[in-house]
Amino acid sequence: MTQTALSLSIELIKEPSITPNDCACQDILIKELAPFGFECELMPFGDESLDYHAPNGKNAQIKNLWAIKKGADSSAPVLCFAGHTDVVPTGDEAAWTYPPFSATVADGFLWGRGAADMKTGVAAFTVAAQNFINKHPNHKGSIALLITADEEGVAINGTKKVVDALKARGEKIDYCLVGEPSSTATLGDVIKNGRRGSLNARLTVTGKQGHIAYPHLAVNPIHALAPALNELIATTWDNGNDYFDATSLQVSNINSGTGATNVIAQTAEVLFNFRFCTENTAETLKAKTHAIFDKHFAASDARYEIEWNLSGEPFLTEKGAFVDACTAAIKAVTGTDSKLSTSGGTSDGRFIAPVMNAQVVELGVLNATIHQIDERVAVADVENLAKIYERILEEMVL
Amino acid sequence: MTQTALSLSIELIKEPSITPNDCACQDILIKELAPFGFECELMPFGDESLDYHAPNGKNAQIKNLWAIKKGADSSAPVLCFAGHTDVVPTGDEAAWTYPPFSATVADGFLWGRGAADMKTGVAAFTVAAQNFINKHPNHKGSIALLITADEEGVAINGTKKVVDALKARGEKIDYCLVGEPSSTATLGDVIKNGRRGSLNARLTVTGKQGHIAYPHLAVNPIHALAPALNELIATTWDNGNDYFDATSLQVSNINSGTGATNVIAQTAEVLFNFRFCTENTAETLKAKTHAIFDKHFAASDARYEIEWNLSGEPFLTEKGAFVDACTAAIKAVTGTDSKLSTSGGTSDGRFIAPVMNAQVVELGVLNATIHQIDERVAVADVENLAKIYERILEEMVL
Repeated sequence: MTQTALSLSIELIKEPSITPNDCACQDILIKELAPFGFECELMPFGDESLDYHAPNGKNAQIKNLWAIKKGADSSAPVLCFAGHTDVVPTGDEAAWTYPPFSATVADGFLWGRGAADMKTGVAAFTVAAQNFINKHPNHKGSIALLITADEEGVAINGTKKVVDALKARGEKIDYCLVGEPSSTATLGDVIKNGRRGSLNARLTVTGKQGHIAYPHLAVNPIHALAPALNELIATTWDNGNDYFDATSLQVSNINSGTGATNVIAQTAEVLFNFRFCTENTAETLKAKTHAIFDKHFAASDARYEIEWNLSGEPFLTEKGAFVDACTAAIKAVTGTDSKLSTSGGTSDGRFIAPVMNAQVVELGVLNATIHQIDERVAVADVENLAKIYERILEEMVL
Repeated sequence: MTQTALSLSIELIKEPSITPNDCACQDILIKELAPFGFECELMPFGDESLDYHAPNGKNAQIKNLWAIKKGADSSAPVLCFAGHTDVVPTGDEAAWTYPPFSATVADGFLWGRGAADMKTGVAAFTVAAQNFINKHPNHKGSIALLITADEEGVAINGTKKVVDALKARGEKIDYCLVGEPSSTATLGDVIKNGRRGSLNARLTVTGKQGHIAYPHLAVNPIHALAPALNELIATTWDNGNDYFDATSLQVSNINSGTGATNVIAQTAEVLFNFRFCTENTAETLKAKTHAIFDKHFAASDARYEIEWNLSGEPFLTEKGAFVDACTAAIKAVTGTDSKLSTSGGTSDGRFIAPVMNAQVVELGVLNATIHQIDERVAVADVENLAKIYERILEEMVL
């Protein structure tokens, strides 16, 4: 019996797959995909002996799925759907109108954790692919799914490792459709055609502890830090461009002091984050930051160190065949004129775009209730999303 | 049997009077002073039911002693010795060469907690007063002692309360000799003829918490704070004067952030302290600080608050009869040319000088080992300090 996007969504939501647990979600997908000619490969990464939720368990093993239905022409493009089966925790289950893993349909909505982020997206693409293959068994291009169970967590052994492994063995992805909930007011009103990069810094300034009445015998790390921090915060890093807002620096944490009011501290620690556009790279931001600190600390008795952690480079899919296919599909199914956006947080697109040199677009249901109590999605949107995805396949891999 | 400064010091050090416990120290002093015509009055302040070491016990009752030997001429000056019988904790007792309350005499030193800070000072003045009264029973001026058991602690119910009560009932103090260990290399090499003021501030900047990827929806308190803090730290408050170093501002603590790297914090808190000279007052410093913050926050969506706590206004005893009597006494007893200084931390002189409009000078033994393991003082210095104090009495109240 053939599934609908709704029925497959319900089956997936009933799996309580709180990150990074896949439960049986990937098995369900294999059961759906294999009969349609998909080569399905589980690609677990990480250490099987570790508990993910233990303090040092972040390298625990994660389940991932790579499924590909090869097209008739091996030189034709590969369109890959990227998604995840893990969900964020439910919060207070008693606060939900319907139990979070009951996948209840009521009042025109499908309710449950993962209903928006993003089991309906996974289900819609799976059903879209089935329908497309039924109609066009001799399609030229290839259709793939890259599914991980660790998108909501530390994301170490998820999409990043799979992409690196695929790249290493010569697989290609030309177009990547990330099924994250991109819509804001109506289905398809927003397509994300890029994401800002994210670069974290942990700054430590080391002075010399002492008594506050004898500052000449101490080196106050807060005083050494202040002018450099002030310049860092006041700096304009770029002015953005046609696709991106300007790069933004935000200081999230600053800590120094013993608690006592009469002691000059030994160290000060600052955490800050760049959300950056394609006018900068991680390297240009690091260089500019170090230039500011080097200048201010040249004549200081204090010293500074910065530990950098690149969460993701920015990526951008400019207007062209892929973006056009998405906007046309949305217009045809829902009548909505969609808007391109690069705002907001990160997604697994950050791992795929740079490695595969792929065009990446994020398109999915409404994000209004994601991560919240009573996460839900309109039933009509689930079926329409499957239709949109099917039209995109027809445009890109027929 | 008459005590020497050394024997009385030993008797006092054997009392383990860790702040704010006086043990029997003040009783010992009364036993010494009463036979010489001193009117001795215990002046406890605070709540007898409170435990000083409990979280809210800072208003616990403190023992204080006011003793006065009236002179023949009631219009002649009153010279008051100010000191304390409490000591700081011992630290690791096993690390001491001799047990900290054994008051051992060895190698020319008297060893023990309080040997320098400041039981030898209390003993030396007591013996000096006894000797002076024996020789000059009809002295014109008056001799007083103001002794507290809470100088090393929060100092709420100690000297400050006693001075206020004395003032309220019309007592006067013209000259105040604080027996704190002022000497650095040899006995009497440094006299403190003033102290800087100390003003504490607790600054709170309140912004609006938010996600670091959406800074336009948040107000980052660290970013609001940075320019004002930078100007605060860069400000020259004054250039000092003939007696004082320039006013110094030091930031001791700064804290903001949730620990997470993707959250903009709601608030930032900063603790800072002014050590200030007589070129400023607490009020001028507050006004200048608020002017800086008002300017920077005028156009900010964040707001700031400062909670001020004045620990003590600065005081200064200019060169004159009292300072001259001190330097001459030192020169006569030890041959040392003493130096005037206003540096270092605070002392109870801050409570006496402004209320009594008294000239305040600090003169005592070497401070090299105070608050340390193996606190000690040269035996010869104890007896010489008593001689110096006696000469000062001869100059000021004969």
